[in-house]
This record gives sequence, C-alpha cells and structure tokens, in this order.
Amino acid sequence: METLLLNAADVDENARMDLVIEAVAGAFTAYERGNAQMPPKSYIDLSEYNGDFRSMPAYMRVAADDAAGEEGWDAAGLKWVNVHTDNPADHDLPTVMGTMIYSDPETAFPLAIMDGTALTMKRTGAAAAVATDHLAVPDATSLGIVGAGVQSYTQLEAIAEIRPIEEVVVSDLDEDRVARFIDTFADRFEVRAGSIAEAGHCDILSTVTPVEEPIVGPDDVGEHTHINAMGADAEGKHELADDLLLAATVVIDDHEQCTHSGEINVPYAAGTLTDDDIYGEIGEIVVGDRPGRAGVGDAAGGGEPVDVGDGDGASIGDDADGVTGVSVFDSTGLAIQDVAAARVVYQQADANDNGYPFDLIGLGR
Amino acid sequence: METLLLNAADVDENARMDLVIEAVAGAFTAYERGNAQMPPKSYIDLSEYNGDFRSMPAYMRVAADDAAGEEGWDAAGLKWVNVHTDNPADHDLPTVMGTMIYSDPETAFPLAIMDGTALTMKRTGAAAAVATDHLAVPDATSLGIVGAGVQSYTQLEAIAEIRPIEEVVVSDLDEDRVARFIDTFADRFEVRAGSIAEAGHCDILSTVTPVEEPIVGPDDVGEHTHINAMGADAEGKHELADDLLLAATVVIDDHEQCTHSGEINVPYAAGTLTDDDIYGEIGEIVVGDRPGRAGVGDAAGGGEPVDVGDGDGASIGDDADGVTGVSVFDSTGLAIQDVAAARVVYQQADANDNGYPFDLIGLGR
Repeated sequence: METLLLNAADVDENARMDLVIEAVAGAFTAYERGNAQMPPKSYIDLSEYNGDFRSMPAYMRVAADDAAGEEGWDAAGLKWVNVHTDNPADHDLPTVMGTMIYSDPETAFPLAIMDGTALTMKRTGAAAAVATDHLAVPDATSLGIVGAGVQSYTQLEAIAEIRPIEEVVVSDLDEDRVARFIDTFADRFEVRAGSIAEAGHCDILSTVTPVEEPIVGPDDVGEHTHINAMGADAEGKHELADDLLLAATVVIDDHEQCTHSGEINVPYAAGTLTDDDIYGEIGEIVVGDRPGRAGVGDAAGGGEPVDVGDGDGASIGDDADGVTGVSVFDSTGLAIQDVAAARVVYQQADANDNGYPFDLIGLGR
Repeated sequence: METLLLNAADVDENARMDLVIEAVAGAFTAYERGNAQMPPKSYIDLSEYNGDFRSMPAYMRVAADDAAGEEGWDAAGLKWVNVHTDNPADHDLPTVMGTMIYSDPETAFPLAIMDGTALTMKRTGAAAAVATDHLAVPDATSLGIVGAGVQSYTQLEAIAEIRPIEEVVVSDLDEDRVARFIDTFADRFEVRAGSIAEAGHCDILSTVTPVEEPIVGPDDVGEHTHINAMGADAEGKHELADDLLLAATVVIDDHEQCTHSGEINVPYAAGTLTDDDIYGEIGEIVVGDRPGRAGVGDAAGGGEPVDVGDGDGASIGDDADGVTGVSVFDSTGLAIQDVAAARVVYQQADANDNGYPFDLIGLGR
C-alpha cells in the first residue's frame, strides 16, 4: 500500500478541469449543507523572512443526490502553503509554494502527496467557473481578465468549460505577461490585449491582481457583467471600487474569510459595505436556496429547480426571478476546494498510472 | 532543487537519538523563551469512522547560546496525524499514521516529506530523555517500563543515551509484547519481565499505556523514582493514581495540552489537582529557571548553572536545592518536538545520501 507522489506536472495533467469544477461545486454544496469540516486556517507569521505559513485542513462529504454522475463520496486532506514575498528576488523561488496531503477519511492512509501550487491554481479557476455558471448571463461568450499572472490561465481554462467563450480581452501593465498569455491561448480563442474597461465590458470579468487600491470602477464594466474578484487574499487588498461593489449583487465564498481577507474586507472594515449588501454565499446558490442569474435556471446544470424561498422561509422578493445587473463573486479560496480538487487529481493519476508510488508509511506492501 | 522523501525506515535510521534529544531540549528552550510559534492543534473529528485527524504546525528558533555545539538555528514544519481506533482490526493498518512536511523557514521550500509515525516515536522518547536528564537521580541505572507497545522501544533507546541504564524491567499483560521487547534489547541490557511495582521501583519509570483507570499507585514506585507519564493523550486517560500525582513533583510539557489531554487532565478537571500542584513546565527546568533533581546540577549537561530564582523573581523556597522524592513528567507531545526531530532526520539523511529526492514543486532543477 503506497502513497502516490504527484509533482506539479502530474497535478497539471490530471486535474481534468470539468471534473475539478464538479468537485468544487460539490465542496460548496457540502459546506452549505453542513457536511464539511474546515477548522480556521492556522498561521505561522515569520516577519523576519517577510513570509508566512498557512495550514489548511478539511473534510467534506458530498451526498449521492448532490454528486454529479456518481455515488456520494467524501474526502479529507491538508494543504500547507506559504506566502514569502521576497522569494522571487532573493531566492529564485516562487512566492507561493504548497504541499497537499490527500488522505482516505476512513483509515487516514495518505493516498497521495502532491504539489499544492498547481492544485491551488486549478481549484481557484474552478471556483470562478462555478460562480460564473450560476451568475453570468446564459449566453456569455466573452471573458475579460485583469492581471495576466500565473492565476489568470486557469480562469480562462475553467470558465471556457461552462460557457462557450470565443473572445478574450486581457489587461496587464506588463506587456511580456500579456504576450505570454495570448501566445498560450491564441489557437483556441480570439485573444487580444486591452484596457481594463475593455476587459470589463465582456460578459464575464475575472480580476486576478494583488492590488491594494481598486483598479476597476463602475464605468469599467458592462451592464450585466459578472465579475470574479479573485485577487484579494489578505487584509487591505481589494480590486473593485466601493461604488461598483455597492451597486452589484455580491456573492461570497465564506463570510469569515471574505470579511477579513477577501475583496470586501476593506469596505467591510470601514462600515461602507455591510452584511445587508451581501447577497449570499456561493453554496446557497449552488444548492438552490437562492436564485442565480435570471434566465440561467436549469441551464446552470445543477439539476435542482431554483427554490425562491431562502433558508429561513422568508420571501426574497425582487430576487425571485434571479440576479440582474452586475454581479461579483468574492473568492478567498477554501480548504475544501483543495481537498475536492486533490481527489480528482488522485483518481485521475491513479487511473492513468501517473505519479510515483512510495511506501512512505513503511508498510512494506 | 528537490524535496527529500523519507520513509519509515529512513526516519528510523537517520533519527540519531543523541541529536534528537538535543534538538528536543532546544525545542523546549525555544518554547520557554518565547521563540516558538505553535498554533493550537486543529482537529477534524470523524465519528462515523471512529477516528480523527490532527494538524500540528510549528516554528522554532534556537539561539546560538542555547544550541548544543552548533550555531543557532530555526526550523518549521507541519505534522498531519490521525487516530483511527478501528484500523488494526478492520483495515490491517496502524491506528496512528503521520506525515511530516519539513520546510525551510526562510523560503518555505519543502526540504523533506517524511513518515511521521516513526518520527513521533523518536521525539516522544527524546522528550522523556530530556525530562529524565533533569529529573532522575544522577546515578540512575535502572528503568522500568509499563506498557510494551510501539512507543516503549524509544523510551529505552532515548533514556539509555542520558543515564547508563543497565537493568530494565518491562511490565505488560501481553506476554508476546513483553517477549518481543526483551528479545529486541537482551543483547544490550539486563531486561526482564516484571510486575508494575517491580518496574516502578526502578530509578526511572516510563508509563506508555492508553488506560483510562490508573494502574500505578503510590506503593508501586520507589522513594525517588522519576516517572515519565507518556500514555495519556486524550481527555479521560490517566495512568497514575491521584495520590501518587499529588505527592510527587509534577512537571508538564504545556499547560493547555496537559490540563486538557495529559496525565493530569482527569484530576485537574475534577479539581483534585490544581495549578498549585504543578511544579513547572519542562522548558523552565531546561533553561535553568527552576532547578531539576537535587544533585543533578551540571551533570544534566545543560551547561547553565541552575538558577534558584524562578521567572518572577520570587524565591521558590524548598525547591532551591532541587527536586527530591518522586517526580512525574506529564508529556503530551508538542508540535515543536516534531519539527526539531524532523530537522535532525533531514540533516542526517541529506548527509548520508539517504531518501528519494523528488521534484515535487516542479522547479526542474
């Protein structure tokens, strides 16, 4: 009985995006239904190295009724990940490196140990795709991307799985990064460089930057643009102007994380944006307790009819027909997404005979 | 730049016990001096599988003055470990399996991933050895062990590093386990089976059982026996009778952990044993803020003269000459012990060209 070791290339190859999107939708469902355990992230703060470590353990169970095309399943694991800002300049190493341990919940046997960096990109793209599936207009064909860094690639890769994307506008001050992005996708999409406003007037916009001063204002987006705000991951960071946020339908992944370190953390701390301005958590929409975009309905593929009553039985009034206008998904990234994505990678790699089996535990069998 | 993979045999081979003991003493020192970060263990409780997962991240820095024979050092890492009670019967797997990620604190690069089960045994033995070094009589030559399970081996292995153990008495209801233990060590020590009282009348006693009703009473131990109480690791477990504990000098590894899940947790919860009955934390003794066993002094090898004042400057009166009578070390096991031991294993394995280097992060160099 061996532990499967999967490096970055193995993860990249086996994280079949359609399956990762399904798995992440399952994770949001499990969390919403109270079928997940996700202790708060533990931080080790190393100011002397301008870095930190984060420990992200999680367990989730997806009921058969919620599992797309298979029996119910559960999964457990832990991601150990860091942010060391000086790494690229001082050590020629990535700022963020992650290691994922994927365990069998029934026995705790470590089924796989895999690179957590590639995994993070995949599951982050998948989260944007799940939100886009429920919140973008049904006939969306254009995607804008602000920030052409490492996380931008899986935004396009994942979102193209759930809407027939044809046109892509990418905006970044760094021309090399823009050129690299275009070069990667030019054979599959009409990709061009553009301004932030050009990107924002696509049907869907993903923002993937680490800025602390908002760079996208109300005039930069279209009337019904769905925005995946992926960049903010720490106190003080935000990409969208307050008045854009306040006019939009705001969906979050987790209240605790979003209000502390997500896109909404700055206006929330200032009292500019309150709980009344938050439409709901993505899990509520995925399970059908709140409607997604008007007209998406069954097209979202969730299978469940949209329930116009919310959890406590009160009417949600104007929302009954679904979200209209600009919508924003504030994604901070949950440990259950990593576990869900790791399960896909492990199962695919196991089926494809990829990876390196290693008798870590020393069972000799 | 590759991550070194070390299986159980590699860990066993490279965890040089003298170095692990030094490293664990360093961990206690760092913790006592406020130079460690150890967020509370995160639990994932899986009652449906009669098991749980625990996430144990830690960072520690040992100053040059406290480091034995080398420059100051620091270390970071995380152990992901479980307790699944049905594993042996239902799955032919160990109850406890652990995986350790050992990381460079400066860059967060995962230097090594190693079996955490063998590591746990080594660092647990080392903790008993550090306590024994400071609390057993200087001329101790006999060691009793109650409970001949997997953790008992490193008790003898470690304690024999710091006292010239000649005679060993092992007590366990399971004759096969006793025979296996004797067989393992018969060529190095005078090892024999005995009653709990015979084991307890040795100079040093280590108890390594999972019992919930105490099995060692006041009459079972000698006048100056030092007891390493290693077994209790959860609420409700204890090995030593209350009156034995109350008459002894009780040293703990960590107040939070010991009062919740250590040897003292049951009488502490009942109010039978209070903070007044706790002599101090092992770190206070290791750094010299509280005296250890009378007569041990410099023989403990700490190098620092014993400081007869305690941390807050008040006299500790009768303790000024050191601990006399029966002493008890309540060991729950700290995440910093794992990190300290992992550093030894990694450095030895790296020097010995052991293990399997693997490009987990996918740097391609």
